[in-house]
Amino acid sequence: MDLWYTEKQTDSFGITAKVKETYVREQTDFQDLSMIETEEWGTMLTLDGMVMTTVRDEFVYHEMVAHPALVTHPNPEFVLVVGGGDGGVIREIMKHPKVKKAVLVDIDGKVIEYSKKYLPTIAGELDNPRVEVIVNDGYMHIHDHKNTYDVIMVDSTEPVGPAVELFSKGFYQGIHEALKEDGIFVAQTDNPWFKADLIQTVNRDVKEIFPIVRVYSANIPTYPSGLWTFTMGSKKYDPLQVEESAIPEFPTKYYTPRLHKAAFVLPKFVEDLIK
Amino acid sequence: MDLWYTEKQTDSFGITAKVKETYVREQTDFQDLSMIETEEWGTMLTLDGMVMTTVRDEFVYHEMVAHPALVTHPNPEFVLVVGGGDGGVIREIMKHPKVKKAVLVDIDGKVIEYSKKYLPTIAGELDNPRVEVIVNDGYMHIHDHKNTYDVIMVDSTEPVGPAVELFSKGFYQGIHEALKEDGIFVAQTDNPWFKADLIQTVNRDVKEIFPIVRVYSANIPTYPSGLWTFTMGSKKYDPLQVEESAIPEFPTKYYTPRLHKAAFVLPKFVEDLIK
Repeated sequence: MDLWYTEKQTDSFGITAKVKETYVREQTDFQDLSMIETEEWGTMLTLDGMVMTTVRDEFVYHEMVAHPALVTHPNPEFVLVVGGGDGGVIREIMKHPKVKKAVLVDIDGKVIEYSKKYLPTIAGELDNPRVEVIVNDGYMHIHDHKNTYDVIMVDSTEPVGPAVELFSKGFYQGIHEALKEDGIFVAQTDNPWFKADLIQTVNRDVKEIFPIVRVYSANIPTYPSGLWTFTMGSKKYDPLQVEESAIPEFPTKYYTPRLHKAAFVLPKFVEDLIK
Repeated sequence: MDLWYTEKQTDSFGITAKVKETYVREQTDFQDLSMIETEEWGTMLTLDGMVMTTVRDEFVYHEMVAHPALVTHPNPEFVLVVGGGDGGVIREIMKHPKVKKAVLVDIDGKVIEYSKKYLPTIAGELDNPRVEVIVNDGYMHIHDHKNTYDVIMVDSTEPVGPAVELFSKGFYQGIHEALKEDGIFVAQTDNPWFKADLIQTVNRDVKEIFPIVRVYSANIPTYPSGLWTFTMGSKKYDPLQVEESAIPEFPTKYYTPRLHKAAFVLPKFVEDLIK
């Protein structure tokens, strides 16, 4: 018998991946969590029926959440990750020696627990002494920590279930207040083929709060449409002003100093969304 | 009853799209051709069970085959398209007034016939007086036309069925001879997630024939992995030397003068393939 994981990315389009084994299928306090072994992508974590990460292509998303902001900020000592319980963004942050402390706040401790067990190549740095892991509501954490962080990264699920509030203007306002006076934040903001409205709304909201707002993209084959966007809001530093030659060396599989600015050059139909 | 088109892009991964209506399902002299109406992507042409083009996302592929080479060549008067019977690349070529004549050579007249009938927004320029449409083997046409073209574009299917020879070193050698002394060619060269070997082989072969070889990419959601590559071989002009300010205006939805150079900046794992 062949088992296939099929995800409807829209009402009328989806992906399907052959499954070797199902490790976990559980309704946590917050969402429907699955950990499955696929032929094509290796171990795959899904939440509420959406691929969160796979061992084979996770490097794209995690590198592209972490590095553009950390390279733009000249001294990113204190970094917060909201969501991201699989630990992939934390692993990338740990490649930056300037970071003294990275705090991960995920609302769902089960994501952290199962990622440590089934995704060790992704979650391995969660035990780094420079990392603090907190199981809590990111929205609350933000509002309890004013003027605290140099960089905040929002590694959320889609805006359904527990992540709805993480796409609200109130949340971006809270992030602004939780950042220091020269802070930067970045959030994953879905794809322009099926979620153009979301990208437009977030862009408009963030522009009302941050003086510098930039959108960049990356190819993530297991995410809807394969074209993923990230929105960066910055109080002072502009990612487009970073000199390629000033970007430090660290090991990657997707991000490069050459790609840093190129990632911000968007297809015309995406440019038009955020004019 | 719900009908879904499901394409196995690899043995263990694929896409699935809801079908409203099937217009054509036919074994032509060369391949299995389908023209179907999908909910998400509009009318879709498939050959041998692979998506060739859809009304909704076709602009990406067709713009990105045509414009980088035409903008790089200072005087692209005579252009050849091998394959591309749907007419999308021809439509983009016609946006360049310097082009005096574009020749389309597709081996399968049925692709042209059904595209004109069911994909009028894509095939509409096939009747342009600057266009000559020939139903013939592109390999033969190339070998019968020495020193003829300024730009040659290879808009082939995957290297299965009738397109196998279009990925051979002999074909690239033939293209070199069919080009004028300052000619440029570009070919679609599949995706780096599932066809890394193909990209490497083509790159090595083309480098042995052309002094300037460049690879660029674009996001095409209905193609495997969403990340598509194109390989350009040039006798004289380097696409990376094109000045953004010198690129003429023409209407697009994906390509922009800003994107011209950025498209050539590849993710690290793709860069590593073609070192």
